[in-house]
Amino acid sequence: MKATHRPDIFTFSSFDAARNLDFNGYYLIRDGGGLLVDPVPMSEHDRQHASALGGVSCIIVTNSDHVRDSLALARHFGAAIAGPAGERSAFPIPCNRWLDAGNPSLPGIEVLAQRGSKTPGELALVVDEDTLITGDLVRAHGGGRLDLLPDAKLRDREAALASVHGLAERAAVEAVLVGDGWPVFRDGHARLQELLQRLRAR
Amino acid sequence: MKATHRPDIFTFSSFDAARNLDFNGYYLIRDGGGLLVDPVPMSEHDRQHASALGGVSCIIVTNSDHVRDSLALARHFGAAIAGPAGERSAFPIPCNRWLDAGNPSLPGIEVLAQRGSKTPGELALVVDEDTLITGDLVRAHGGGRLDLLPDAKLRDREAALASVHGLAERAAVEAVLVGDGWPVFRDGHARLQELLQRLRAR
Repeated sequence: MKATHRPDIFTFSSFDAARNLDFNGYYLIRDGGGLLVDPVPMSEHDRQHASALGGVSCIIVTNSDHVRDSLALARHFGAAIAGPAGERSAFPIPCNRWLDAGNPSLPGIEVLAQRGSKTPGELALVVDEDTLITGDLVRAHGGGRLDLLPDAKLRDREAALASVHGLAERAAVEAVLVGDGWPVFRDGHARLQELLQRLRAR
Repeated sequence: MKATHRPDIFTFSSFDAARNLDFNGYYLIRDGGGLLVDPVPMSEHDRQHASALGGVSCIIVTNSDHVRDSLALARHFGAAIAGPAGERSAFPIPCNRWLDAGNPSLPGIEVLAQRGSKTPGELALVVDEDTLITGDLVRAHGGGRLDLLPDAKLRDREAALASVHGLAERAAVEAVLVGDGWPVFRDGHARLQELLQRLRAR
């Protein structure tokens, strides 16, 4: 797995030829057990790397379209799967837990609801206030800037903009680790504000 | 290939398990023919992508250790290979041209010499003043910051620091596209200055 801006967060990717960008999964070392977020398939090397760092006790899937390799990795690591409570009724895989906004069960990790996105209950995570992990709504098609899911895929553009507004208000966010595209490791707060301004200027 | 900060520059990577980072090749659309820099192997998808963007007329190899898949790609695209003049006497592959600092034959691209690095004649490129492409000397082991090749691999640390100083003086540099690790797409000038300060503080 690749290092990020923090020594306790790693990432692994798989290139998506249809969109010409990387899909990213994240691995977090946490008290109480390692965490995977929206994991793409992991190579044997990366699985061993995660095991050496403490293994995986929980896999968080931010939305129905980001299940990726969660089931196989849950089996491999003996991990529980936590899915978005707002998509429980039609989630594509069985989950051990359901997360909703404000769910306090993950120490140091804040669970946010993202409204208006492609799926009704998408989640985003804020880790120790400085690191935002996004699922589908906020992404990065190019380097050094953030993007929103294209309008055609949004359920409600105004609600989506309100979600981005909520993210852009978090002044302590340094990194924005996107599920799709280039992670932003510095000045995440400024990049979110730029995104919001660009979206509102349209 | 993945988009970068500019619509005319793309990148493609291969994960190096020994260092847990990506090795990156770059593709530039240029008047007079596409350019590859330090290309890692390209998938069939990426080769077709480059062909659709205008093909490749020249492959620049910044140093003897970054030959990577240049020979096979030169054959595939019918491209010339340009190597560093300072490593001509022992370069691992035949080159059609040799580049030295200040070489004016590539319009809009400035060729810089990097002294003190792992190999004697390493090059760096500055594209249209805003984009620095580095070979081995400047790299990024983590996200959002730049690193220098470890001391043990440097031929001359003082000379290497002088090279970084030269890069850090270029105020117009926005992106630092590294051969090894995470590309920096924003505030490249500030990241180079931070690197220089960190190296001098040791």
